[in-house]
Amino acid sequence: MAKASGASAKLSKKAYESKVSRLRRDLVDLQVDLQQSRTKIVLILAGVEGAGRGEALNTLMGWLDPRNVETIAVDAPSNEESERPFMWRYWRSLPSSGRIGIFVDSWYTQTLREQTDNRQDLAKLGDELHRIRHFERLLADSDALVIKLWFHLSRDDQGQRLYNLQADQSTAWRVTDHQVRAHKAYQRLSRTAEHILAETDRPGARWDLIESVEPKARNLAFAQTLLRRFRAHHRQLHRRNQTKPSKPTRIAALRPDGRERLLELPLDHKLSSRDYEAKREKWLGRLNRAIRRAQEAKRTIVFVFEGQDAAGKGGAIRRLVSAMDARDYRIMPVAKPTDEEKNHHYLWRFWRQLPRDGRVIIFDRSWYGRVLVERIEGFCYPHEWRRSYAEINDFEEQLQDHGSIVVKYWLQISKEVQLERFRARETTPHKQHKINEEDWRNRKQWAAYETAVGDMLALTDTAHAPWSLIPANNKRYARLEVLRQAAKRISAALE
Amino acid sequence: MAKASGASAKLSKKAYESKVSRLRRDLVDLQVDLQQSRTKIVLILAGVEGAGRGEALNTLMGWLDPRNVETIAVDAPSNEESERPFMWRYWRSLPSSGRIGIFVDSWYTQTLREQTDNRQDLAKLGDELHRIRHFERLLADSDALVIKLWFHLSRDDQGQRLYNLQADQSTAWRVTDHQVRAHKAYQRLSRTAEHILAETDRPGARWDLIESVEPKARNLAFAQTLLRRFRAHHRQLHRRNQTKPSKPTRIAALRPDGRERLLELPLDHKLSSRDYEAKREKWLGRLNRAIRRAQEAKRTIVFVFEGQDAAGKGGAIRRLVSAMDARDYRIMPVAKPTDEEKNHHYLWRFWRQLPRDGRVIIFDRSWYGRVLVERIEGFCYPHEWRRSYAEINDFEEQLQDHGSIVVKYWLQISKEVQLERFRARETTPHKQHKINEEDWRNRKQWAAYETAVGDMLALTDTAHAPWSLIPANNKRYARLEVLRQAAKRISAALE
Repeated sequence: MAKASGASAKLSKKAYESKVSRLRRDLVDLQVDLQQSRTKIVLILAGVEGAGRGEALNTLMGWLDPRNVETIAVDAPSNEESERPFMWRYWRSLPSSGRIGIFVDSWYTQTLREQTDNRQDLAKLGDELHRIRHFERLLADSDALVIKLWFHLSRDDQGQRLYNLQADQSTAWRVTDHQVRAHKAYQRLSRTAEHILAETDRPGARWDLIESVEPKARNLAFAQTLLRRFRAHHRQLHRRNQTKPSKPTRIAALRPDGRERLLELPLDHKLSSRDYEAKREKWLGRLNRAIRRAQEAKRTIVFVFEGQDAAGKGGAIRRLVSAMDARDYRIMPVAKPTDEEKNHHYLWRFWRQLPRDGRVIIFDRSWYGRVLVERIEGFCYPHEWRRSYAEINDFEEQLQDHGSIVVKYWLQISKEVQLERFRARETTPHKQHKINEEDWRNRKQWAAYETAVGDMLALTDTAHAPWSLIPANNKRYARLEVLRQAAKRISAALE
Repeated sequence: MAKASGASAKLSKKAYESKVSRLRRDLVDLQVDLQQSRTKIVLILAGVEGAGRGEALNTLMGWLDPRNVETIAVDAPSNEESERPFMWRYWRSLPSSGRIGIFVDSWYTQTLREQTDNRQDLAKLGDELHRIRHFERLLADSDALVIKLWFHLSRDDQGQRLYNLQADQSTAWRVTDHQVRAHKAYQRLSRTAEHILAETDRPGARWDLIESVEPKARNLAFAQTLLRRFRAHHRQLHRRNQTKPSKPTRIAALRPDGRERLLELPLDHKLSSRDYEAKREKWLGRLNRAIRRAQEAKRTIVFVFEGQDAAGKGGAIRRLVSAMDARDYRIMPVAKPTDEEKNHHYLWRFWRQLPRDGRVIIFDRSWYGRVLVERIEGFCYPHEWRRSYAEINDFEEQLQDHGSIVVKYWLQISKEVQLERFRARETTPHKQHKINEEDWRNRKQWAAYETAVGDMLALTDTAHAPWSLIPANNKRYARLEVLRQAAKRISAALE
């Protein structure tokens, strides 16, 4: 797996400086090239206590052009961070295209620190490593260059370093209790580290070892490793096929059963206005109580509304929020991504919108655009939307793990009903803004959407975030169903 | 000043519903129009305890299209908020173009609450009102529609309402200690409120009074007031001259003394390499100690680098950061605003970058672009850049009030030296990315920039954020000066 870099032999000052001078020039050149090709670089610095990651980083910052580099050092989570899923703080710190994010503290920091302070049980560690592998794979899949460096130091060298620091009055303060404990537990930590390294050394997210006993050699090894990885990535960019994704000629089902389920749904329902009003009050009341209980329990509720154009998402959302206090919810209409969002992973724009604990967020369209419009219009490559199902399931699982309640709706109408509603929009003055050319274009893709929706329903209908299919030809019936499903799902989640 | 709205006479259910139905249609129509014309609407709900702002808001949300409305209700500041200047939490919540932000809690909330709990001295209140006036003026100047509503209730009606709530077991919990105190102090609070209303009732940010004794009439008055303000703004938009700002034919100095100061600066300095190295070490050391002391005192340092193209900002920044730990600073290169940023006030993009307490942020170009490139290229109207000097001074004063230390540099080179450096960039392979057509175009505007820089220096050289003018023909001398000025300024601020 990880390759060892960095000779431990002492370098003469002159030899060091000449090497540094060449390295710097090469590094900056490649940095500029990668910046111009919009690469995002995620650099993780981890390793043994006392190996001098901080010093090495400061040296490196003098060698790079620091202006498009961001150093991420996270202390204890802020309350805004701890009130969101664990990975939120890292998502918010990810570099955008063309930038380098150096994680001095990363998703490994907490894992390693806990191992120092107490023997964590292996099952929990296994879960964390699974989550880490998944996240790094997601980054690598999105063409980020992920560089993970492990700064290594033997037990004796670590002891020597701590001793030297303590012996000098001006540096003694730098030796922390944590470091002393880490030294005492070196053997055990070292075994854990080996385990972690082995379990997270995966294609696209390999570890490189930096031998750290001698500072100059360590710094050179650090820079040389970066240079090698920059070069390899740069070559790869040039080899890569530069054709843009194109609109597919046909949409083939991955899971025909999903489409079946959709087509079997009875869409027409009768519901008298009086019946509707009585039931609406009942379900609004239940929903209101369920939401208040969720808030008291500090549980966030994430609503997702998907459905064809004119399926009645807006109307359903309006009735839904009438059960809530305006101060407690936020509605997020999802349209085209902004240019900042385009410079990030497609899930980033949704991560950034996650609210603090005990609040409600309503996505009017959502991350499912990836496997619907982006798939159908060819806005991304097939291998991209294909892997999104797993990424989305994982995202929603992280929401659930944090205690959030995910409620997802697909509102389904028939093609005839859509036509009626489009025409009504065109002829009603204050509804004309709700219809445009794009809606008519999408309508021509009706069959393609049926297939894509079917795949979505089959592949993302999970225990932690099941889909509610809402027959929506009858608006009243649909609105009631939305309330009813919400109340039931939230109540069930609170049991 | 504020006009009274809302009759207190009881409405029949039928009359109410017919009025509501018309109001809703008109409101949504105008909401769509204003959204399409990219208006941002800031709606502030304030008033007497128990007047039912929350209920009125929930009713309104059922009448509007809630999808482009955001309700801002802020509790106690999060630690991320309290570690930034007071207004940061409101800046981050401002609606973007085409959206409505409803502040249930606003910059008035804390002021009013403190007045309830203890008699605040009037001097402090005066400062707050000054800050509020300034902020609202900034919003109104940037073409936001600012609507401020005061929900009014007499002492007797307030008492009756509290009594009714307390008498019913199911609602008694809604009466808080805060409300009881507010009722007892009604007379005093009422005088304070009158004072606050009078002091913040300004063009572009007028108060409207909503009589709140009868809920239905209150809700109607609320919606009617919105409708009236929406309409007036909409008419105004249509009357407004739609010509885009254009490039000015000449740049006339507002403050010739600023330009004089710039031209009088001796640019050439001698400094041997040996002398430079010795002094550099000395100042790096001092700067390092000053920054560490600032961090211990939880003081944030905000560096601003401005200067002509090729004046050496990048090189100076690199030397500056060599005095710091990479984990403590962030460099923010400022280029064109992103589309999200364009949907906000020009200062928003800088507010959003402000770090938490005790950190360092370095702006490589900054908000001064407003009075330099935007003025010279005609990216904004003359009245816009003209008022920016005051807005910028106020922004920097808020930084200082929070305890941040602002260090601003203008790096000045001669026209000849710029030419030399441009040519060197064109002929040195790894520097070619640093020069482009735009640099040559800017160079042609040399005299215009001299005037604009002069105005900037004269109009924004404040006691809380003075400019350091750096002669930069000699790179070594300039870098040293940057270090020296930083160390001196930070040390002085810490005294």
